Formats: sequence, C-alpha cells, structure tokens
Amino acid sequence: MQQYFVKGRADELITITDKDTLKHMFSVMRLVDGDEVVLVFEDGIKRLARVVSSSQHQLEMVQELKDDVELPVQVTIASGFPKGDKLEFVAQKATELGASGIWAYPADWSVVKWDGKKLVKKVEKLEKIAQGAAEQSKRNRVPEIQLFEKKTDFLAQLVTFDKVFIAYEESAKAGELAALARELQIVETGQKILFIFGPEGGISPKEIEAFEQAGGISVGLGPRILRTETAPLYALSAVSYAVEMNISN
Amino acid sequence: MQQYFVKGRADELITITDKDTLKHMFSVMRLVDGDEVVLVFEDGIKRLARVVSSSQHQLEMVQELKDDVELPVQVTIASGFPKGDKLEFVAQKATELGASGIWAYPADWSVVKWDGKKLVKKVEKLEKIAQGAAEQSKRNRVPEIQLFEKKTDFLAQLVTFDKVFIAYEESAKAGELAALARELQIVETGQKILFIFGPEGGISPKEIEAFEQAGGISVGLGPRILRTETAPLYALSAVSYAVEMNISN
Repeated sequence: MQQYFVKGRADELITITDKDTLKHMFSVMRLVDGDEVVLVFEDGIKRLARVVSSSQHQLEMVQELKDDVELPVQVTIASGFPKGDKLEFVAQKATELGASGIWAYPADWSVVKWDGKKLVKKVEKLEKIAQGAAEQSKRNRVPEIQLFEKKTDFLAQLVTFDKVFIAYEESAKAGELAALARELQIVETGQKILFIFGPEGGISPKEIEAFEQAGGISVGLGPRILRTETAPLYALSAVSYAVEMNISN
Repeated sequence: MQQYFVKGRADELITITDKDTLKHMFSVMRLVDGDEVVLVFEDGIKRLARVVSSSQHQLEMVQELKDDVELPVQVTIASGFPKGDKLEFVAQKATELGASGIWAYPADWSVVKWDGKKLVKKVEKLEKIAQGAAEQSKRNRVPEIQLFEKKTDFLAQLVTFDKVFIAYEESAKAGELAALARELQIVETGQKILFIFGPEGGISPKEIEAFEQAGGISVGLGPRILRTETAPLYALSAVSYAVEMNISN
C-alpha cells in the first residue's frame, strides 16, 4: 500500500497541505473517497488512513499499524563532500538501507567547494530524495540530512555518538578486518553510531588524527577498494546483517 | 599503483594489444620506459610489471605479488532483467563488492524485453564496466557476465551452485531474517553461491516455485524494502561481512 510521510501530529482527521504529497495522492495515484493509504507522522508510527474528502484533501485515521522496520541502532553516515551527484545517490541508497542520518562535510581532499547558498539547495534536494526513498522502502522515519559548511562544526558533533567508525582504506590494507565485527557485537539497541567516509581522494592523515582524538575507531570494510559512494552501502548492510539478521546476536 | 587486466598467460615479456588498455596506459597515464604497473592475467595473480618499450607497448614482469582480495566464496548474482541502465549500475557496484559472476535473466515480471542482438551489446557494455570496476577496486578477477535469453537456460545453471538463495521480499515481511545468516555460517571456502533477485515487480510465485524446486532457499535481506538494484549490494556486503570480517567464523 502507498505510504506517505506527513509533518506534524496524527489527529483523527487531517488535511494534507504538502504540494508534492497532494500531487502524488490525487494526481498520480488518483485517490478517491474511501481509498486507504499508510500515513507516517513525526512519531514514526505507521497509520492506516482513509480518504474522506478527495476534494478537501482530508483523511481520517483508521488504525495504528505495528510495522516497524527501523534499524535497532541509529546509524548516521558522514561523507566527505564527493564530486557530482554522488551524494544524491548515497542519500537514496542509504535511506533504503536504514540510515538515520545522512551527513556530509568538507574534507581536506574534497575537490568540490560548496558554499552556503549551494548547500541550502543541496540539502533541499537530498531531503526530497530521502523522503521518496523512505516512502518506497516503507521506513518509519525519514533520515535527517545535514551538510556542514565547516569541518569544525562536524567535528563538534562526534561526541554525541556512542560509537564513531572511520572507514579507512589503510585499515583494510593492513589486514585489520575484524575491528568492525568486534565493535558491532557489543553495540546495544538504541545506540547512536556514526560512520565517517572520505571523499574520492580519501581521508587525510590530519583528519584521521582528529577523528581518532574524538574517539573514532578506524575500521576496514573488506579487502577490496570501495568507491566513496559504495562504502556507506557496505557499512549499512553490515550493520543490518550484524544486528538484525545475525542469529548469534 | 595502476592495475590492468590482460588476457592470456603471463610471459616474461609481453606486448599489450588491447586498444582500451593501450589508450589508458600510454595516452591517459602517459607511461614511459621504466614505469611500473600491476598486471593481472587470467590466472588471477597480480604481477608488478615494468615498461620496457612504450613505443612497442612492451612490458616485462618484475615479480609476483601476494595480494589477493577475492571473496573466499564465489558469489554470483542473477537479476531479473531490470529497466533502464540499472544492470550497468549493478555490474559496477557488484564488482567492487566482490561478485564472481553478474548474471541476468528474463523474469516473468521484467518489463524490458531484450532479444539476441540487444543482449550481445549489453554484455559487451557490462563487461567493460566490470573490467573498469575490477581494476579500480584492485580485484584479482573480472566477474563473468552472462545474460540469459531464455529462463530455462538460467534454470539449468542452478544445479552448478553449492547454495542458491532467493532474495524474496515476503521472507522479510514474514519476519524470517535469520535464514541467510544461518546458511552463511555453514558455507565453506571455495563454495559457489548464487543469489537470485527479481526485477522491479519482484519474483513471480511460479518462479519462486521453480527456484525452490531447484534447491533454492528463500531469504530476507532485512526488514526494509530494497529496490531491485540495491538488494544485490546488500547480499554481497552481507557475505563479505559474514565470511571475511566476522571474527566468530
């Protein structure tokens, strides 16, 4: 069944006002009175809702649904600003794979320079992509998008996480493949995890030092060299496999 | 260091003849006499090689390298023909993530129809993408590309695998999340694994039946709905995590 995210609280009767949602509901899906859809408000609970007036864009709540597909840990990924539209790709795929947050920061070796105006537009675009992907993958939450203009602001956020992992190619080359699995085995439900990725050129030694000083742990993501936009997908899949599917956990 | 795949055997002195490789070596990278690169022949062994004549396109072998980044199990992914250029995307990412084979078959619910001529062109394109991705991710092998014109030919291949997994959305919905982990814990080095994915519309009940009759096991890939092009990336990451990084294995 079609699912939509709606801002605000779940009242008994609600009126849809968001333009994109309206368009999808009544122009694309052509919903008529009596049709049912799933609405997800900011509380993350899915609710079966019924169209009571397609002309007034009103829906009434039918019942709460128990369905919760969120990862039991909150995973934020942070990419060094990558080239082109790679961040758009990462936002879509990371949303499908369960990310709570999709962040990016200006890394030492980022080729692109995004200033304030560009960043605002980029955030808007990524938010739309994340919402669309969250609806399609039937998430209970839309990931939070945050692009940092200054690296110091990003660094200041590291203390808010229970675990910070640095995806570091050199860790993989050094044969250190068990670090991530070792850490994921002791992660607890509800904990906040951050994965930091470099841009195409990688993470600079100075950045590694700063991330490690803030408590970050360098981990390898398998022995093969992954592109900057592929590494977050591996990390999220590994977390899902470790905490959602692994019978020994 | 730049890596190239070369067809044939690793003789002491070789002449590069492949046009794309020549172009990259001598026009893009502008290699000169004495420069070193890594060459990988069909035996999958990486060799340090040195340019002895850039005008004659000759290189000599310097030494074998021990570096082997192949997955300890051989994983082939098989997608129901998807729309647009999704298979190109899957080929690139699955190569990075260690796939041995990248296959596709005409599924009941595939929207696209690819005939013989189109398939030949598609295979050529995918082979180039896989080779480029294998070079970039420093693989020892280029994944084998195979597109089946008839589903019966694909079905006939299932017996050649030690394990066949069917990525089935309904398994995830039914809360069956441990099946894949349970199976991956008993997989042995060198075994051949096949993952079957549906196209956008999913796998038809008739196909599920045929795959299961051929020994396929339905597995979920986490509780979230993954797009057809994202599911193979999850599967490959999970295999890597289970067999390469999980300390309990």
